[in-house]
Amino acid sequence: MYKKFMQIALNEAKNIKYDVPVAAVVVYQNNVLSVCSNRKEKDIDLTAHAEILAIKDAQKKLNTYILNNCDIYVTLEPCPMCMWAILSARFKNLYFSSYDTNYGAAGSRINLAQIKNSKINIKGGILEECGDKLLNDFFKELR
Amino acid sequence: MYKKFMQIALNEAKNIKYDVPVAAVVVYQNNVLSVCSNRKEKDIDLTAHAEILAIKDAQKKLNTYILNNCDIYVTLEPCPMCMWAILSARFKNLYFSSYDTNYGAAGSRINLAQIKNSKINIKGGILEECGDKLLNDFFKELR
Repeated sequence: MYKKFMQIALNEAKNIKYDVPVAAVVVYQNNVLSVCSNRKEKDIDLTAHAEILAIKDAQKKLNTYILNNCDIYVTLEPCPMCMWAILSARFKNLYFSSYDTNYGAAGSRINLAQIKNSKINIKGGILEECGDKLLNDFFKELR
Repeated sequence: MYKKFMQIALNEAKNIKYDVPVAAVVVYQNNVLSVCSNRKEKDIDLTAHAEILAIKDAQKKLNTYILNNCDIYVTLEPCPMCMWAILSARFKNLYFSSYDTNYGAAGSRINLAQIKNSKINIKGGILEECGDKLLNDFFKELR
């Protein structure tokens, strides 16, 4: 099941131009609620990461910032900014594809869930090869 | 000098209704560029912390997300979400008033500047008694 939603996130990320290809999907009651991609460069806004935009969209649609009946899928392990937002939203599950050993805050570099004493369920490495390829291709082309 | 700008932030925080009283001021070339207060409850948006809003406003005004010629003043030590945004924006100086031993990410609970290998200058405890009183009064009234 979670491969299906991660594939939606990966497809969204593939369509990104100029920005680092990262996308996030919020799932509510087994349906896609929000699909957002990284818009940092496009919006000239360093907070416009895929996860933040997806959370904002989901909040608006559900009229609450408590998203404890939702899951979030991200193509890359969240940075500390996004991870803290994910934890604050009280998502039940976080699924991500590629690991980020530099800044990943879901356990690779630091574990913010521990700091917040959160019970969120975290599963990384979903369709990892696809996530990695997307990022590698982007950075190869950039160079 | 920095007490002057912190006082502006504290005054802004004092005017907040319903939301936890936290405000942020971005200073550019010794002038106030942005003044924002926490709007989490008001906007039903957990990302609407004072720092995030002030950064977004400053980015728009300067048409860049690189705020390395700016300083940021916050009435409370930033949480990990806001601290990572502050570090990503490359502020020269971060000044804050109250320390947050629960979730402060500028050193009290965790030190994200270290994780990001940032050279930001951090000074906490500015007009600390005023910052603490503001928060204590708010939570006392809430109970």
